Amino acid sequence: LAQDLHHSCQWGYGIRWGNNPTDTGMQRLALSEDDKSVRDWFIQTTKELNCNVTVDQMGNIFAVRPGRRADVPATFIGSHLDTQPTGGRYDGILGVLAGIEVLKTMRDMGLETEGGVGVVNWTNEEGARFPVSMISSGVWAECISLEHAHGLKEVPTVASLPTAASAPETMKSALQKIKYLGETPCSYKSSPMAAHFELHIEQGPHLVTAGQRVGVVTAVQAYRWFRLNIIGRDTHTGTTAFEHRADALYAFARMMVRAREVAAAKGCLASVGIVEAKPGSVNTVPGLVSFSLDIRGPETELVARVEQELRADFDDIAAAEGAGIGKPCRVEWTLDFDSPAVKFHQDCIDCVQESADAVVSDAPVADTKSLVRPIMSGAGHDSVFTSKRVPTSMIFIPCKDGLSHHPEEFSTAEDCATGVSVILQAVVRYDRR
Amino acid sequence: LAQDLHHSCQWGYGIRWGNNPTDTGMQRLALSEDDKSVRDWFIQTTKELNCNVTVDQMGNIFAVRPGRRADVPATFIGSHLDTQPTGGRYDGILGVLAGIEVLKTMRDMGLETEGGVGVVNWTNEEGARFPVSMISSGVWAECISLEHAHGLKEVPTVASLPTAASAPETMKSALQKIKYLGETPCSYKSSPMAAHFELHIEQGPHLVTAGQRVGVVTAVQAYRWFRLNIIGRDTHTGTTAFEHRADALYAFARMMVRAREVAAAKGCLASVGIVEAKPGSVNTVPGLVSFSLDIRGPETELVARVEQELRADFDDIAAAEGAGIGKPCRVEWTLDFDSPAVKFHQDCIDCVQESADAVVSDAPVADTKSLVRPIMSGAGHDSVFTSKRVPTSMIFIPCKDGLSHHPEEFSTAEDCATGVSVILQAVVRYDRR
Ligand SMILES: NC(=O)NCCC(=O)O
Ligand SMILES: NC(=O)NCCC(=O)O
Repeated sequence: LAQDLHHSCQWGYGIRWGNNPTDTGMQRLALSEDDKSVRDWFIQTTKELNCNVTVDQMGNIFAVRPGRRADVPATFIGSHLDTQPTGGRYDGILGVLAGIEVLKTMRDMGLETEGGVGVVNWTNEEGARFPVSMISSGVWAECISLEHAHGLKEVPTVASLPTAASAPETMKSALQKIKYLGETPCSYKSSPMAAHFELHIEQGPHLVTAGQRVGVVTAVQAYRWFRLNIIGRDTHTGTTAFEHRADALYAFARMMVRAREVAAAKGCLASVGIVEAKPGSVNTVPGLVSFSLDIRGPETELVARVEQELRADFDDIAAAEGAGIGKPCRVEWTLDFDSPAVKFHQDCIDCVQESADAVVSDAPVADTKSLVRPIMSGAGHDSVFTSKRVPTSMIFIPCKDGLSHHPEEFSTAEDCATGVSVILQAVVRYDRR
Repeated sequence: LAQDLHHSCQWGYGIRWGNNPTDTGMQRLALSEDDKSVRDWFIQTTKELNCNVTVDQMGNIFAVRPGRRADVPATFIGSHLDTQPTGGRYDGILGVLAGIEVLKTMRDMGLETEGGVGVVNWTNEEGARFPVSMISSGVWAECISLEHAHGLKEVPTVASLPTAASAPETMKSALQKIKYLGETPCSYKSSPMAAHFELHIEQGPHLVTAGQRVGVVTAVQAYRWFRLNIIGRDTHTGTTAFEHRADALYAFARMMVRAREVAAAKGCLASVGIVEAKPGSVNTVPGLVSFSLDIRGPETELVARVEQELRADFDDIAAAEGAGIGKPCRVEWTLDFDSPAVKFHQDCIDCVQESADAVVSDAPVADTKSLVRPIMSGAGHDSVFTSKRVPTSMIFIPCKDGLSHHPEEFSTAEDCATGVSVILQAVVRYDRR
């Protein structure tokens, strides 16, 4: 597993942080040339494992190892091979490689299943290049329209990366460019599944801090992504008194400070990852600022309340900036993506729980069950969308310092192997049910 | 004057804001193709006015109409033809066009002078493309080294504009590209002047608010430009609690809010025009932010005190962000440009004052002298650097709403004509002295 995982990371490796050959992060944006290379490798590898491989209109790749019966859909293991611009080697990649490892283990053990066993690589899960996360599992679940997804433009901040052309690509043009615009309709009807399991690093600190080995993921928190514009007035930095300014960047600064206050008070998160100020000159007060806002919380309703409060507060902040000249800033919100809180399927949760308990049962501690805990996911995953159509759940393993979306993201080979053992058993248990 | 001015604005006109043909701003970044076109026109026009034209190693263009005596240097009128990315038709442009208008008037009047009368177009006064304002008059004054200036890179935020190549240009490569890397050494020794006068729009609200017609500029406030980096840690927006973050963009937001507080308390200004957050992904907390900081105040010492206080406060803000994980943000400062407060030369001030009083003397008000006032400049101008080597002063005229560095920047043709009359007389008065 470790060998295959690092082998697959030769395409798109990123920032070096240590001396070992594998001590680099990843920079493999969705539908980049490096993403194409790792996709080609994924198809070749799964074909060598006797899988039937199909590619759909969103570039999702489905590899299915047939079972005894042809009349039932396969049970899937899925995740994604794309990364953040400064991502690591585990987020998503581990989940797909776990699928390949399961296929290899089944072959080596001569294990047969009732239904088939599939591995799926979902396109642009990160939402880093095209700013809607899990978009392609979203189209598969028929929660997002194909037209919307195909038309989505890459974000300008990554446009300086080697993946991007001078004019921003759309998802469709990027799929065509790397020849992954498949013909299979992107839908759960055309690529059916019995269930979807996903192995992932936790990306947070709970397991690692508690010394626990497996998280049985029961739910995913809610989140909403917005793009906001603040419209103020360009003016001279040297001659314009503060009270004569409608400084869009100053308004932004106040909004970002306020967003953390409001979110924290409600046990939620609010984050800005992208900001652009125009015209971008040292001595011009910016008249236009665009930024992304990512609001998350354990309940859909809580996220809505943070949003509501911020809409009011941002209006107040905008109104105050430029009031002195009767030309206050204005703020415009666009909802890019809405992912309500999700509860996973009890059958899948049970299969994962039983498998996890079994896998850790020979650990040298008195209460092995304490090594496994139920957990909610802070991040979104393709399992959010598969859960809309088929029984779904996830498995978490610990990662160093709870760190993710960072080149130093790391899980030990042992923890990864534990995760693969759990997902293998969960799939087999589900298949038997 | 108005005809020539708008004619010269055909090269690099910017954002349209009204229905008249001339109701657009300007986007003529230094050493762009449009800047080349207007430079070519400037040379052709001044040559037709019997000027001797030279271009120095910074692309400064000196056009001299000879006087009676060849043994004394010319008295110059100077300003700049480059603009902000969202600039207007008056900032700098009026000053150079006033010089041409003076030459034309002298020709039409058959006016002879003792020394010659020169018009100079200084390169990259704005500091918008290459982030040091007045850099080429700075090299001429031998206050900035030629090597430093030639090596200066364009700012990345304007790199998306049509002027810029994919890799950032240096001033030298940009000069070569438009064939304005002249052979004359860039120095007050090679291109000597008797004095330097500059006509400019106020760029602030004082004259227009008071209904005054001419500002006799006696001084220029101090300013310093910095580039700051905040180094935090990339991490996941959905899984990382606020207390586990070293969010460089959140630290930036707090710094910008604080900068205004500190500057305001000292009667100074502090402004951010450029900000970049990396890696620039919706769901990654930015681990690196770079931004420009422009601090200004009426006294050099005050600017230094604002800087000192902000250095301490920014360190505190950085230290607090990431303290929870023992990986606080760090902040690094680079001084890009330092322009101490300037007092202009009394002889030049006197010439301007007498000329202004004379020009407004037939206005239909009781106390015509009240239409003229002494004023300090909030913005920097090439006159700051010429004042280090030769007697210098400036003339301000009102502009609409005190607005500048904005497409709608505007002064009436009458106010512009008043300004030209004043500078013409000031030059003649100086020449007679
Ligand atoms: N797992 C993961 O990082 N997914 C990206 C979507 C999100 O931002 O939560
Ligand atoms: N006049 C003017 O806008 N000059 C640019 C330099 C500055 O920022 O003050």
